[in-house]
Amino acid sequence: MAETRRLTLEALERLTHGVLAASGFDADHAEAIGRVINAAQRDACHSHGVYRLLGMASAVREGLARGDVAPEVIDHASAIVKVDARFGFSPLAFERGLPALIEKTRRQGIAAMAINRCFHFTALWPEVERIAAEGLVGIAMTPSHAWVAPHGGSRGLFGTNPLAFSWPRPHAEPYVFDFATSAIARGDIELHRRAGKPLEPGWAVDSAGRPTLDPQAALDGAMLSFGGHKGSALATMIELLAGPLIDDMTSLESQRFDHGRGAAPCHGELILTLDPQAFLGVSLEAAQTRAEALFAEIVAQGARLPSERRRAARRQAITEGAVEIPAALVEELEALRSGQG
Amino acid sequence: MAETRRLTLEALERLTHGVLAASGFDADHAEAIGRVINAAQRDACHSHGVYRLLGMASAVREGLARGDVAPEVIDHASAIVKVDARFGFSPLAFERGLPALIEKTRRQGIAAMAINRCFHFTALWPEVERIAAEGLVGIAMTPSHAWVAPHGGSRGLFGTNPLAFSWPRPHAEPYVFDFATSAIARGDIELHRRAGKPLEPGWAVDSAGRPTLDPQAALDGAMLSFGGHKGSALATMIELLAGPLIDDMTSLESQRFDHGRGAAPCHGELILTLDPQAFLGVSLEAAQTRAEALFAEIVAQGARLPSERRRAARRQAITEGAVEIPAALVEELEALRSGQG
Repeated sequence: MAETRRLTLEALERLTHGVLAASGFDADHAEAIGRVINAAQRDACHSHGVYRLLGMASAVREGLARGDVAPEVIDHASAIVKVDARFGFSPLAFERGLPALIEKTRRQGIAAMAINRCFHFTALWPEVERIAAEGLVGIAMTPSHAWVAPHGGSRGLFGTNPLAFSWPRPHAEPYVFDFATSAIARGDIELHRRAGKPLEPGWAVDSAGRPTLDPQAALDGAMLSFGGHKGSALATMIELLAGPLIDDMTSLESQRFDHGRGAAPCHGELILTLDPQAFLGVSLEAAQTRAEALFAEIVAQGARLPSERRRAARRQAITEGAVEIPAALVEELEALRSGQG
Repeated sequence: MAETRRLTLEALERLTHGVLAASGFDADHAEAIGRVINAAQRDACHSHGVYRLLGMASAVREGLARGDVAPEVIDHASAIVKVDARFGFSPLAFERGLPALIEKTRRQGIAAMAINRCFHFTALWPEVERIAAEGLVGIAMTPSHAWVAPHGGSRGLFGTNPLAFSWPRPHAEPYVFDFATSAIARGDIELHRRAGKPLEPGWAVDSAGRPTLDPQAALDGAMLSFGGHKGSALATMIELLAGPLIDDMTSLESQRFDHGRGAAPCHGELILTLDPQAFLGVSLEAAQTRAEALFAEIVAQGARLPSERRRAARRQAITEGAVEIPAALVEELEALRSGQG
C-alpha cells in the first residue's frame, strides 16, 4: 500500500483550485471542474479524483485543451439543447447547458443535451446525480478512445464508453449506476502488467484477436466489452448516439485527433432526461412507491444497489471532514500548483 | 433434430391468421400480430415466431387478454404519446401510436411512446426496424415476468427485460440489435425444455439458488442477468423506465397479476425515438458517413453486425418463398385453427 496523506475537504478544495488556476483554467472552469473532481475524491473514486488534474493540466499546457473558453449554449430544437464546449472541459459545458435542459424536459417530458467538442476526464455519475436532484431521470454516455475490440474482432474500435443512469427517490439518495461497457478499465490492465499478474479471461485479446491473459499482449491488442456480443452492441449504440447523432467524433476519430499524444479524449457527450412528473401527473407518488418496492426487494435478497460503496465513502469523508490521497500524488499536485509541475 | 414441415410464406400467413381468427382476435389485431409473428418466423427467430401463437390464443381463451379491443392513443405531452392497449396485445397498440410518435419526434427532436396494459409476446426488433424505416433512431424496452435474479441475489425479480436499438442507414438495412438483459431469452429455456436439451452454465439457478443446467429447474428457479452487475443494473433501469415511469407494472407485479397461470406477461413498454435530421440538419450526410465507417471497421475485423444471421434467414425465406417449422408445432397450430386446439 502506497503512503497516503490526509487532506481536509477544505485543503482538497484549495489544492484542486490552486492546480487549476496555475494551469491556465479560469475561475468558472475551476469551479465546475473542482465540484466533480472533489466529489469523486470524496467518494473514494480515485480513478476520477484529483489524479485526473494531471492530465487536464498537461492538455492545457500542451495547447490541446482550453481552460478559459466560455461554452456556448445553443437552443437547437424544442427538446434538444446543444452546448459547444469549444475544446474546453466538459463540467462547465454541462453546468451551462443544464438549466435549458431541465426547462425543456419539464415542458416536453423528455429532452436531450448534446455537448460537443469537449475534453472529457470526469465520471458521469456526478452529472446524473445532479439531474436526479431536479427530480428528473438522467441517462448519460460518451465515447472515449478506440481501445475496445468489437465482439468477434481483433482491433480497438470502441471506447470504454460509459453509460450512467439516475432515478430520483423522494426519501433517499437517487438510484445511480455508471459503468464502462468495456470488461475492465484500461488502467487495470496496466496495473496487472506492472505487477506481473495475468489478466482474467474475457478481458482482452492479442493483436491477432485471440483471447489472452498476458497484459502486454492485451495492451498491444485490444480490450473486450463486458457481456460478450450484448456489451459490444451497447458500446456500438453509445458510439452512434454520442458520436454521429450529435455531430461529433467516434472513439476511433477521437483517438486519431489525439495524434498519439495519449493526452485527452476529445469528443461529444449525450445526456437524455425524462420528467416523471410529466409522464405520471397525479400517479407520481404511486409510481415512486412501486420503484421503492423494487429497490427493497433487491436489498432484501442481499444484493447491493449500485453506488452503495461510493456513498459509504462519502459519508465517511463528510463525517471525518477529510480524505486520504496517495502522498506522491499530493506532492505532484502541489508542485503543479506552485508552477513547478 | 425434430421433424419439420415446409410452409410457403402464403401458407404461413394463412395459418397465423386462421389461428388468430379462431382464437377470438379481430381483423385489426390479427393483421398487426401477423406482421410481427410472420416476420420473426421468416427471419428464423423461432422463439418469437408462430410458436408464440399458442400462448396468445390461450391468454384470450382464458379471458386474460383481449383480442378485440381498440387501443386508445393519448396525446399526453409535447414529446410523449401514450397508448392504452386495454389488455390487448402490443402490436396493434404500437402501430396505432406510431404516427403520433413519429410526428412528435420530427417536431421536437426526441420523443417517447408509452404503451400501457399490453400483453407482450413479440420481439422488439420489428418495432425498432419500423422506426428506422422512418429515418429515426429507436430504442425499445419492456419488463416481463420476475424470472431473473438481481446480481448477488437468489430470487426472480427482473424480467428478461429486452433492449432493442435501431440506427437508420441510407443505403443498407438499419443497424439493429435486440437482446434480453437476461443471460438467455426465456423462450430459449422453454425451447431447451421442449427439446430435452441441457442449458449452458451461467444461464440460471434452481429454486434454492444453485447453478443448474436443467431447463425445468431453471424455470422453477431463476435466470441470471448477462454481464454480471452491469447487466443487472441495465435490467433495473428497464424495470424503472418501462414500469413506474410509465405508470405500469414491474416484472414482479406483472407476474403476480398473472396469478400463476403462466400465461401472458401483461405490462408496459417504453419506446424512445430520436430524429437524426433534427439533431444534425445539414450535417446529416457527414454523420451518416461517420457511422458507416464504424460499421465498415466492425465488418473489416471479421466481427458480425447484430441481426446478420436474421437477415440471411430472411433472404433465404424470401428466395425460397417458404420456411421450415417443426411438424409438431404446425399440427398444434392447425388444430387451434380448426377449433380443436
